[in-house]
Amino acid sequence: MRLLDESNIEDIALGAAVLGTGGGGDPYIGMLMARQAIRDYGPVELFDLDELEESDLVVPTAMMGAPTVMVEKMPNGDDIVNAFESIGKYLGKPIRATMSIEAGGLNSVVPIYVAARLRLPMVDCDGMGRAFPELQMVTHTIHGISATPFSMSDERGNTVLMETVNNNWTETFARSVTVNMGAMAMIACYAATVKQLKEAAVHGTMSKAETIGQTIRRARVQEEDPVNTVREAVGGYMVFKGKIGDVERRTEGGFAKGDAYLEGLDEYAGKQLQLSFQNEHLAVRIDGEFKVTVPDLIVLLDIDTGEPITTEGMRYGYRVAVISMPCTEKWRTPEGLALVGPRYFGYDVDYVPVEQRYG
Amino acid sequence: MRLLDESNIEDIALGAAVLGTGGGGDPYIGMLMARQAIRDYGPVELFDLDELEESDLVVPTAMMGAPTVMVEKMPNGDDIVNAFESIGKYLGKPIRATMSIEAGGLNSVVPIYVAARLRLPMVDCDGMGRAFPELQMVTHTIHGISATPFSMSDERGNTVLMETVNNNWTETFARSVTVNMGAMAMIACYAATVKQLKEAAVHGTMSKAETIGQTIRRARVQEEDPVNTVREAVGGYMVFKGKIGDVERRTEGGFAKGDAYLEGLDEYAGKQLQLSFQNEHLAVRIDGEFKVTVPDLIVLLDIDTGEPITTEGMRYGYRVAVISMPCTEKWRTPEGLALVGPRYFGYDVDYVPVEQRYG
Repeated sequence: MRLLDESNIEDIALGAAVLGTGGGGDPYIGMLMARQAIRDYGPVELFDLDELEESDLVVPTAMMGAPTVMVEKMPNGDDIVNAFESIGKYLGKPIRATMSIEAGGLNSVVPIYVAARLRLPMVDCDGMGRAFPELQMVTHTIHGISATPFSMSDERGNTVLMETVNNNWTETFARSVTVNMGAMAMIACYAATVKQLKEAAVHGTMSKAETIGQTIRRARVQEEDPVNTVREAVGGYMVFKGKIGDVERRTEGGFAKGDAYLEGLDEYAGKQLQLSFQNEHLAVRIDGEFKVTVPDLIVLLDIDTGEPITTEGMRYGYRVAVISMPCTEKWRTPEGLALVGPRYFGYDVDYVPVEQRYG
Repeated sequence: MRLLDESNIEDIALGAAVLGTGGGGDPYIGMLMARQAIRDYGPVELFDLDELEESDLVVPTAMMGAPTVMVEKMPNGDDIVNAFESIGKYLGKPIRATMSIEAGGLNSVVPIYVAARLRLPMVDCDGMGRAFPELQMVTHTIHGISATPFSMSDERGNTVLMETVNNNWTETFARSVTVNMGAMAMIACYAATVKQLKEAAVHGTMSKAETIGQTIRRARVQEEDPVNTVREAVGGYMVFKGKIGDVERRTEGGFAKGDAYLEGLDEYAGKQLQLSFQNEHLAVRIDGEFKVTVPDLIVLLDIDTGEPITTEGMRYGYRVAVISMPCTEKWRTPEGLALVGPRYFGYDVDYVPVEQRYG
């Protein structure tokens, strides 16, 4: 166990925004929320799974919705506490800790807020090792853990709880209600024991995010080529350098969907990259050919600072590097690829691990 | 208290279909469900509110959705039991009885099914004295009773529970989920004590429906002018006789919406009636002029049999009488008209009680 205080939060939010592959919420907003909670309520205990009892119950907390909306509508904090406490009341059992369901600028720190405010520990793991746009896309699903009881709350005080026969139905109902709630809701779900999580979760995600965040922070002041420093720190591959041209966005069914087009720079001059996203970056095509797809991670870094750029932060004229990192092995199984492979998202290509093309 | 057995069910379903003003579900399907439950589990106790303890808790049960879908997709019974039992589990209190939330072919008998299967009593009252298309449109709302905890279940085994800050939010969330559930869901909501219901509910609706049903059944075999017999039995006014021409339907946001056009017969020859509906009949215009609107009841009766015709049952060529009955006084208050008056439904006219035009 170690304590997370204000000094850790910025690194975690920043590093998690890299793992968030463009999604998982705005790191700045998440950082503000969690930092304030630690100032108000004190530091948060971060446990490894091995340090807890196997029977302990852990309930992840997160934001659900279109990150484009979050920039203008900040969660008020009571919403996520309502969602979390509803699950506890419904289960009628004590909840030992919370955790991140995904790595992302906001969704890595939402649980820190909950943990600080409710004086609960947090566990150093998540359910993706990255961010994905839909609820059922967690390693919990591969291991048969139900998303329900699922709870979602808005800033007005509304709470919706559900019990569904599979995790896809949770996604369907929760997505509709998220749209009704203003395209953003705070959620608590995937209650599981520590015993289940030892097998089902992606371990050490918070610490990994923090290390990445520290690297970025040092690189932007000390390094000549911060992108390369960050790329090395995350074990990633260089895919492209370019300037953002058109960004086509649409908010569809509660998601921020679209495509960005990049014109190559330096050794990539003359090439064009198409980046497709649904909250998160899903696929990279260079001159029309698929080069990287889900479930591997696709990350845009600012060429000058090495900082990650979220899908909603992409703007015309930004000079960026596109890097890619291998996903956790759980996503490369047949069950994993059925949940989050390129075909699920409508791309008629087989998944090719990034290291086979760029390693 | 009296017992409802098979012999009462058909009359209640038929009479409630008159009070349902075109909505509230198909009386035939409802009748089949409730009759089978009474055959399987025995007769149902029907209590007046005065016969129960003031502290007794009553939870209404109903179908929510587009009646057009119900004709093809029959509820399986487990769905409504799931919805009802979820509320009980959530409240952690024993529920003494169920009741109808509205008068309608299906929604007057869904609670009979629940009562028979769970061996619970039913109370002789409802929340509308008719049927209305949206959840918040109940006399409970006028009296400050919350729709939540609200529970909805589908035939697959999915259940969604909610706590909302007002009854309009319940309608918003539940309508979206109803669409996801296939445009039909079974619901339990508006938990209230007998003390609250004495003030808030419309009393005696089940018995009234049964009397109307008996009248129709007798009239269609014994009377020369069954429409007139039914009209007199319900205290209604003759508005029009005509032949159904075009019926424009659309399923929109989980509702069956549309307009039917009738060409006048007999003394109404040469006149045209436009009937607008949203699950229920909302407004009658004759030659372009508003003649009857919500909250008064608009009912189509088959000229030959006196039987009510639901919105989904309207077909080209049917010869029908249009009658109208005054609504309960609760709907004629400023609070009532704000909830269910013509302006709420988008008609830019003041409400004029039907007896002022036709009395």
